[in-house]
Amino acid sequence: MEVIVHKYGGTSVGTPEKIKKVAERIARVKREGYEIVVVVSAMGHTTDELIDLMHKVTDSPDPREYDMLVSTGEQVSAALLAMALQSLGCPAISLTGGQAGVVTEDIYKKARIKEVKLDRLKKELKEDKVVVITGFQGIDSEGNIITIGRGGSDTSAVAIAAALKAQVCDIYTDVDGVYTADPRIVPEARKLKTISYEEMLELASLGAQVLHPRSVECASIYKMVIHLRSSQKEDEGTYIGEAPRLTTFARGKEAGKMEKKEAVRGIALDENIAKIGILKVPDKPGVAAELFGALAKEKINVDMIVQSIHSSGTQADMAFTVDGADLKKALEVTEKAAKKLGAGGVVSDPKVCKVSLVGVGMVSQPGTAAKMFETLAENKINIQMISTSEIKVSCVVAAEAGKRAVQLLHKAFGLDKISQ
Amino acid sequence: MEVIVHKYGGTSVGTPEKIKKVAERIARVKREGYEIVVVVSAMGHTTDELIDLMHKVTDSPDPREYDMLVSTGEQVSAALLAMALQSLGCPAISLTGGQAGVVTEDIYKKARIKEVKLDRLKKELKEDKVVVITGFQGIDSEGNIITIGRGGSDTSAVAIAAALKAQVCDIYTDVDGVYTADPRIVPEARKLKTISYEEMLELASLGAQVLHPRSVECASIYKMVIHLRSSQKEDEGTYIGEAPRLTTFARGKEAGKMEKKEAVRGIALDENIAKIGILKVPDKPGVAAELFGALAKEKINVDMIVQSIHSSGTQADMAFTVDGADLKKALEVTEKAAKKLGAGGVVSDPKVCKVSLVGVGMVSQPGTAAKMFETLAENKINIQMISTSEIKVSCVVAAEAGKRAVQLLHKAFGLDKISQ
Repeated sequence: MEVIVHKYGGTSVGTPEKIKKVAERIARVKREGYEIVVVVSAMGHTTDELIDLMHKVTDSPDPREYDMLVSTGEQVSAALLAMALQSLGCPAISLTGGQAGVVTEDIYKKARIKEVKLDRLKKELKEDKVVVITGFQGIDSEGNIITIGRGGSDTSAVAIAAALKAQVCDIYTDVDGVYTADPRIVPEARKLKTISYEEMLELASLGAQVLHPRSVECASIYKMVIHLRSSQKEDEGTYIGEAPRLTTFARGKEAGKMEKKEAVRGIALDENIAKIGILKVPDKPGVAAELFGALAKEKINVDMIVQSIHSSGTQADMAFTVDGADLKKALEVTEKAAKKLGAGGVVSDPKVCKVSLVGVGMVSQPGTAAKMFETLAENKINIQMISTSEIKVSCVVAAEAGKRAVQLLHKAFGLDKISQ
Repeated sequence: MEVIVHKYGGTSVGTPEKIKKVAERIARVKREGYEIVVVVSAMGHTTDELIDLMHKVTDSPDPREYDMLVSTGEQVSAALLAMALQSLGCPAISLTGGQAGVVTEDIYKKARIKEVKLDRLKKELKEDKVVVITGFQGIDSEGNIITIGRGGSDTSAVAIAAALKAQVCDIYTDVDGVYTADPRIVPEARKLKTISYEEMLELASLGAQVLHPRSVECASIYKMVIHLRSSQKEDEGTYIGEAPRLTTFARGKEAGKMEKKEAVRGIALDENIAKIGILKVPDKPGVAAELFGALAKEKINVDMIVQSIHSSGTQADMAFTVDGADLKKALEVTEKAAKKLGAGGVVSDPKVCKVSLVGVGMVSQPGTAAKMFETLAENKINIQMISTSEIKVSCVVAAEAGKRAVQLLHKAFGLDKISQ
């Protein structure tokens, strides 16, 4: 019998009523003749409430005890979902990550999953039960409860699906799929039927709210097809995977489309960035290492980096972007480094954003970047920084121009017309 | 180093503030040079809240999933208490029942503890940590989470203390010890410094709210001394144990007192009972078996049973008491049995109560029962039923006479004067 893995997020199991609705869907799919494993998050705001409670006890919680505490949230929702299934006459059992054989590294709060031991899981599936597993957690070799960090339940679901060689990992969420652009910005944005792992990773800023990059990485390693879909309706969402496997799910026409490699498949907008410039840096080896080493030491993630030769010839200007929330800290570090390096000065701008075109076909269609620049120039949108990869072109522009840039590019590349 | 086990109930860890206070006490005892293991219940009404949530999902919860659900309550309080200890600079770690090696039978909701495997516990104690263990739960041989029924956390604490050969099991609670009578009824009631297991079990109606009989049974098997004391103050409470071991704790004088065996050590009042009479039952073998077998089948606990020969000589009247909550069901069963047995009729009275004198010395002082009857008679309190054991005399009297009976007996036996 084929195994299917379902994953439901906190909103989908936020109330007893919603839990019952989710149970109905699972029972229906079970009747269609599948073995089903369900991975659940904690109900609604449970995790936040536990963390609030924790902060009333201590300011500096021990990571081990943090994991012990917050892991209870998923245990509650898993037990309740199993009960809801049973009351529909659908045999079910809930398992903690540990009971389900999810073994992690022994790094509290952000471990990676090392292995999923399938003995117990397979035994329960054999007994015709739906197995409901607590997402976001596993145990280390000593039996300690360990959580696996942000986006954890998605990753749990994909890892368990991979271990079980499931047909597909259905991730049920608030949105009904991946779009060519954020529909709130581009009303004509179209839902993509399929998307590759690489594209999905690059479109993280579109998908981050609904699917954590780590789960996509994990899926790409094990070639697990993720079906990102709405927990509110029965429509198909977006299949994330590799073309050969996606043909199993998507209609023939669609699979063919994948092979043709559309140049641009989606446009992402990241408004949560800030730009820092360091001026007149002596143009000598070790400068970048000094600056970015200092930033890395403070755990500040640097995204785009641009270095340009200054007119003087012996000096360079450098610019880079960081997460908006890191700007203050990043500025301190940069100013210290600038002094040490004898640079001319440091400037910053929090009012910028990043517009990116994403598509695996871009590599074979070199005109894409040029067309992007042209479109922005025609519309008087000034490009402050550029960065390109094989499947992406990103431009930093003024914050107030971001949404308009996405709309213009969506139209220019015909994303509203192409059946994706 | 000597090991001490502390147990804190739900009220004692009901808020973050109370958890911090409990942590302060533990840290202080730790500094005195003990190894400490702490067993905690769920915070305040957590368990009830989880059960409410459950009833919104299902009317007939599966026992396994019930245990999975409610066991999270203790996990939360254990993690928070460990954090509170750490923030006081006291090394600590929380362990679930399973992690702590508490192995139970595989009977959900009401298992008995089979074994406490000490490997992990001893390792953590060796590392100088306070070990905080979730009460009320363990795991079966398959790793399923199993709760151990009402009074569970007290029993967990005693079992863990016994396995560790702890010096004493300190059970911190709302009351500050065991009294000669309920102080709300008898203001002159005195706190007992020591009490034997048998007496404590018989005084269950005094102690039931604070200490479950199962934990006392468990303690008596392993000769573990329980120190029942207040979580609000530092005063000593009541030590529950056997005379030889109690001498370690109580002053010499007190220990001597134990040997002298006071006839009456406490008076209990159980107001939550009802009386059923079955009249003119044919006096032949198998009658009691028929009736009480039928009651047992319905899981109705019968306490006192009195059978008297009826004047006719070939018939008997029988009377027995049941828990007040069981009266309706018990009456149905009794009426059915009465018809089958050809009895004369069934009567019942919910307005009765049971007054009991308890003391291990009673067996060697035969005048106790007589003095009790005399005292009640002098005060015009009619005795409806009598039952005696080696360490107890119980009388059923009218409900409205119960409190007065306790007050009169407390005075008559000089319990207000004797230094207990």
